[in-house]
Amino acid sequence: MASIFSRIIAGEIPCYKIAEDEHNFAFLDINPLQEGHTLCIPKREVDYLFDLSDEEYASLTLFAKRVAKAIGAAIPCQRVGVAVLGMEVPHAHIHLVPLQKESDLLFTNPKKQLSPDQFADIAHRISAKL
Amino acid sequence: MASIFSRIIAGEIPCYKIAEDEHNFAFLDINPLQEGHTLCIPKREVDYLFDLSDEEYASLTLFAKRVAKAIGAAIPCQRVGVAVLGMEVPHAHIHLVPLQKESDLLFTNPKKQLSPDQFADIAHRISAKL
Repeated sequence: MASIFSRIIAGEIPCYKIAEDEHNFAFLDINPLQEGHTLCIPKREVDYLFDLSDEEYASLTLFAKRVAKAIGAAIPCQRVGVAVLGMEVPHAHIHLVPLQKESDLLFTNPKKQLSPDQFADIAHRISAKL
Repeated sequence: MASIFSRIIAGEIPCYKIAEDEHNFAFLDINPLQEGHTLCIPKREVDYLFDLSDEEYASLTLFAKRVAKAIGAAIPCQRVGVAVLGMEVPHAHIHLVPLQKESDLLFTNPKKQLSPDQFADIAHRISAKL
């Protein structure tokens, strides 16, 4: 069965989309640690990040760099942090999280509660910087 | 003044080295979350990861992928997690951490206390897989 992320890419499950290229896709995490918390994923469904080919992996990481720059330009923060955990959804994904301090990246922190309008506004602001 | 990481690269401060190429360097984190916790850094001293050029950034991330594969082969773990926080040392660095579960990547966890012999043995085991 397709992963939830593949179903998001296919448009079967809605998302707040940030960006897309031939091989990669970015959208807001629906349980964000911070406003602007974004997931970058390869369109090809691979469970483990480091099982991507070097070409796929470089494409994804450079895509994530472009998205991180846009997040940093759109969301007030000191910098954009990166995390790859990857044990909950079997489809490799890079978390990009705007940080004011290192502890903002702690996955044990309570998640931000945002309305659909807030999510849509954040996605629009980030996309506009791409 | 050179960052502590530039001084490690220059050999002025000792480290448990894992790997090195023309542009990048990897060594064990001396305050590890888990055995095998490794830092990958660009030799050029840049504070913020996303200020690297695309070429430098792709070189670093592909270097980190090779190191992560070696960590995964040398250290019993479910997978190798990735984190970039970067507010403590002003020299971009990618944390690679062997994980049994997602919470193993929590930077609030107590650090592992290892002897010099244990660090040296871990570095040797990882390097041998490269």
